[in-house]
Amino acid sequence: MPRTKPSLEQLAIGIDIGGTGTKFGIVDRLGNLLFSSEMSTRKHKEVETFIDDLHANLVPMIEQAGGIGRMKGIGLGAPNGNYYTGTVEYAPNLPWKGILPLAKMVEEKFKLPVVLTNDANAAALGEMMYGAAQGMKDFIMITLGTGVGSGIVANGKLIYGHDGFAGELGHTIIIPDGRMHDGTGKKGSLESYASATGVRLTALELLEKNDTPSLLRNVNKDELDSKKVYDAAMEGDELAKEIFEYTGKILGMALANFVMFSSPEAIVLFGGLTKAGDLILKPTREHMEANLIQVFQNKVKILVSHLKESDAAILGASALVWELK
Amino acid sequence: MPRTKPSLEQLAIGIDIGGTGTKFGIVDRLGNLLFSSEMSTRKHKEVETFIDDLHANLVPMIEQAGGIGRMKGIGLGAPNGNYYTGTVEYAPNLPWKGILPLAKMVEEKFKLPVVLTNDANAAALGEMMYGAAQGMKDFIMITLGTGVGSGIVANGKLIYGHDGFAGELGHTIIIPDGRMHDGTGKKGSLESYASATGVRLTALELLEKNDTPSLLRNVNKDELDSKKVYDAAMEGDELAKEIFEYTGKILGMALANFVMFSSPEAIVLFGGLTKAGDLILKPTREHMEANLIQVFQNKVKILVSHLKESDAAILGASALVWELK
Repeated sequence: MPRTKPSLEQLAIGIDIGGTGTKFGIVDRLGNLLFSSEMSTRKHKEVETFIDDLHANLVPMIEQAGGIGRMKGIGLGAPNGNYYTGTVEYAPNLPWKGILPLAKMVEEKFKLPVVLTNDANAAALGEMMYGAAQGMKDFIMITLGTGVGSGIVANGKLIYGHDGFAGELGHTIIIPDGRMHDGTGKKGSLESYASATGVRLTALELLEKNDTPSLLRNVNKDELDSKKVYDAAMEGDELAKEIFEYTGKILGMALANFVMFSSPEAIVLFGGLTKAGDLILKPTREHMEANLIQVFQNKVKILVSHLKESDAAILGASALVWELK
Repeated sequence: MPRTKPSLEQLAIGIDIGGTGTKFGIVDRLGNLLFSSEMSTRKHKEVETFIDDLHANLVPMIEQAGGIGRMKGIGLGAPNGNYYTGTVEYAPNLPWKGILPLAKMVEEKFKLPVVLTNDANAAALGEMMYGAAQGMKDFIMITLGTGVGSGIVANGKLIYGHDGFAGELGHTIIIPDGRMHDGTGKKGSLESYASATGVRLTALELLEKNDTPSLLRNVNKDELDSKKVYDAAMEGDELAKEIFEYTGKILGMALANFVMFSSPEAIVLFGGLTKAGDLILKPTREHMEANLIQVFQNKVKILVSHLKESDAAILGASALVWELK
């Protein structure tokens, strides 16, 4: 049987595995998301049944897109995913524990080549191919969601490090002996401040520490989250604005350190917290510049991703496929 | 006239320009330093006379090594040297101010291709080709001298960043609102603690802060330096040991952040402070590990360069030449 001739019409499958849900779709080389859907991750106690379900969901989609012969391969983004080994290792947010040979399992099920990396690296590739970082050879992607993820591109390539785990910028220590991170047991990491979780903790701390009047005092503590802080700030609440100020201050300091490491052309921000716009971006820029030595000042763009959040993860994962030889 | 046929016998000229002196030599592909010498940098008020002198010094050396036809090119390491532009920009420790097109000037004088980078990047290349990082594709070089320099290699390549200035790890902020750095005006940078200057400042602070008896109290404050602290520590002086403990603690925290950035196989340390051996290395290792998240723990080697300090700078600069097409 002759092999399918590689052509511009080849397509890529992108799969983004998150703690709650898994998004998947079929993408062309230009970054058009031709088909997409999602399913639950959490309800699958066993990784095997998860892959069976994923396969069952994707087969009709693949048929619709012209059949398996048009698929160049599968790109997988997953928390704690390792590009070199194709494994997912001790991912705290996934229902499956230990070291999983996920790339191999998916490859055997689908009979297609599979490339795997962590979700933030996939997001960085997506931005480089289709998003805010198009044409850039040096940039840093930071995802500000429940946690803080990152993907670093230098010399036009993702930095994976010697073991495939590079780019854990959310865990760098910004405030020595600072706020405890429950997941890691470390103190003062970026993630414990500049994430949705961090914003909530800052809010609780500031509400406790002083008695400034604030709309946030009317919110039940269990329900206090970064969205509520945002809403209050938009109504002019001073304390809510201070919370974003403080978050931006810490994030800006961290970004300055990242800039002095790899001197990127831009830092691309993505995720829930970026919706706060200038409430967080203004102090972030300001404190980044204030901590940079002269040679780096007023050079580095802070950009917000303009990819649709629901599509970006799939686009990013699919972008891995085009690197396949 | 037929061009000299490129062959394994080609040689490289390495020049390391420091604030006080300039070292230069001729190196073969295996890293043998065939000829070397040095001259003053500081006494040349004009960069033009500096280059004239450098040329006059090198011409007889080149002749001895087989003539200009055997030279593949010149590698230049200089503080604030920019790989992309071949310029040295606002180097605080050099006698010449502003932006200097140094690569171009040397090229015109010697009629040989010239590659320039900053001194720490050159040192990293030297370690990769001839030193502790041989065969590594991901490592970080940190020079602990009067200041703190760095060169970062990822995916087998130096990270220059979008503008050629990447790798200023000495200026990353480790202690927010910490010790003032006179040169940059920034507070709490690695360099203000983990350099020879930083050790001196820590000594002065600790001597002031408490009244522990110490050999260092007999030293005139103007003469107190990292060498005197080392000598005291070797005689068992507790305060002197505490100074290195503290320096190692800050350095270790910083290294943890660097590891979580690029996940290097090793961190190679070089320069005066490394002579303190385990006095500084032990706390550095300990605090690096304590600040790393699990996935990075007990993986990253901290190595001390074994290149002869006087040769390393020339070897590093010469290593640039082999990248020339």
